[in-house]
Amino acid sequence: MHKEGKMLFETIAFDADDTLWHSESHYQDAQAALAELLAPYGVDAETVQDALYHIEVANLPTLGYGAKAFTLSMIEASIETTSGRIRAADIQQVIRLGKSMLSHDVQLLDHCHETVARLAQSHALMIITKGDLMDQERKLAASGLGQYFQRVEVVSDKSTEVYSAILKKHGIAPERFVMIGNSIRSDILPVLDLGSWAVYMPYHVIWAHEVAEVPVETQERFFEIDHLGQLPELVERMENEHIS
Amino acid sequence: MHKEGKMLFETIAFDADDTLWHSESHYQDAQAALAELLAPYGVDAETVQDALYHIEVANLPTLGYGAKAFTLSMIEASIETTSGRIRAADIQQVIRLGKSMLSHDVQLLDHCHETVARLAQSHALMIITKGDLMDQERKLAASGLGQYFQRVEVVSDKSTEVYSAILKKHGIAPERFVMIGNSIRSDILPVLDLGSWAVYMPYHVIWAHEVAEVPVETQERFFEIDHLGQLPELVERMENEHIS
Repeated sequence: MHKEGKMLFETIAFDADDTLWHSESHYQDAQAALAELLAPYGVDAETVQDALYHIEVANLPTLGYGAKAFTLSMIEASIETTSGRIRAADIQQVIRLGKSMLSHDVQLLDHCHETVARLAQSHALMIITKGDLMDQERKLAASGLGQYFQRVEVVSDKSTEVYSAILKKHGIAPERFVMIGNSIRSDILPVLDLGSWAVYMPYHVIWAHEVAEVPVETQERFFEIDHLGQLPELVERMENEHIS
Repeated sequence: MHKEGKMLFETIAFDADDTLWHSESHYQDAQAALAELLAPYGVDAETVQDALYHIEVANLPTLGYGAKAFTLSMIEASIETTSGRIRAADIQQVIRLGKSMLSHDVQLLDHCHETVARLAQSHALMIITKGDLMDQERKLAASGLGQYFQRVEVVSDKSTEVYSAILKKHGIAPERFVMIGNSIRSDILPVLDLGSWAVYMPYHVIWAHEVAEVPVETQERFFEIDHLGQLPELVERMENEHIS
């Protein structure tokens, strides 16, 4: 039930990985399993972590985000850190690790289902996420949340231009758009840059590449919550305070 | 300039890989390079081809389409066909092959640019393609064709349901939609199934997994061309003959 004209927000958009469902923890688990696999070659966990990080960042322009890119980077990190000593059978193990990331159960964050269901009664909801298209579709289907979202946008990167194109495509005014996510760099900054609103919800781990800071001049459109259970009240408060 | 009401087709949609630009030839080149890389291990080209095909098909449900999935399948095929004897340095070579597929130049098919430019003057054009989202965006940008397409849909699979959802989303009537592509299985059958029109344009090579046959009862909405230069006349003929 939309009450048009009474709402500040026309659309409430959510990041998916680590905002609706757990994701980074699977990457961290895979990385820990990789370190275990490479330990017999005399490679320590920190060396694996450093190599994987620099390889992932170097691969971003070519491979992009998601579990398939991560798997290829894990293989390269295995070869690099073992100076090419890694056996083919262990590389097959790395691929198995990667595939398990593409088929794991979807675990929703706390309060996710009831918050999304509640906000869907009053607002149009959207997902804007990076990652492998097929994997995100799989996770959305497995999440049981599909019915609540009117639009799902899987994008290759989350730049200001990408958000701007999405708002334009759907005819959404930037000042009536709010984005919720766990990455300042991908979910918050570009949205504030457009003149939209942003709600930051930190996840307990984050990929170092996503870390960034919020500029002071946009703080009035920037909010923070600890968990999704706080979102409905926050949205109500934002709308009451900012509707003219 | 759209002349609404005079046109049979509201939207003309194109597959991208091997319909607008060359793609399968890059896969075949990579496969040939893989066979060359594995020859010193005593593996012949046919063994590589067979292993790669069965691994790719087995990986489809988990990894989907595109160059990253193909690269992971090439690595698995290397391990399998050499019974694990492949050296890490050669696996790094396989990854390099895969990355070169994600950065090669985009070569348009014959007559592509002028045909697309001409049809864009009279019809709304759309791209519907499988593959890695980021890679397809890269190729579209590099193709110089972006300006002619009003909508670009990168999908994880091309089923009847997927086409149906796209038409519904954009409010396109199935009987006013035509799809052009090189895969009977992905571009033609699901579209005919919906009651839409289809133009098949065979490419000189096709992945065996895409091969299929057109049912007789849909033949009146099925057309075939040899190259894109024939498309504008065909569309004109279809519209003249079938507009009531």
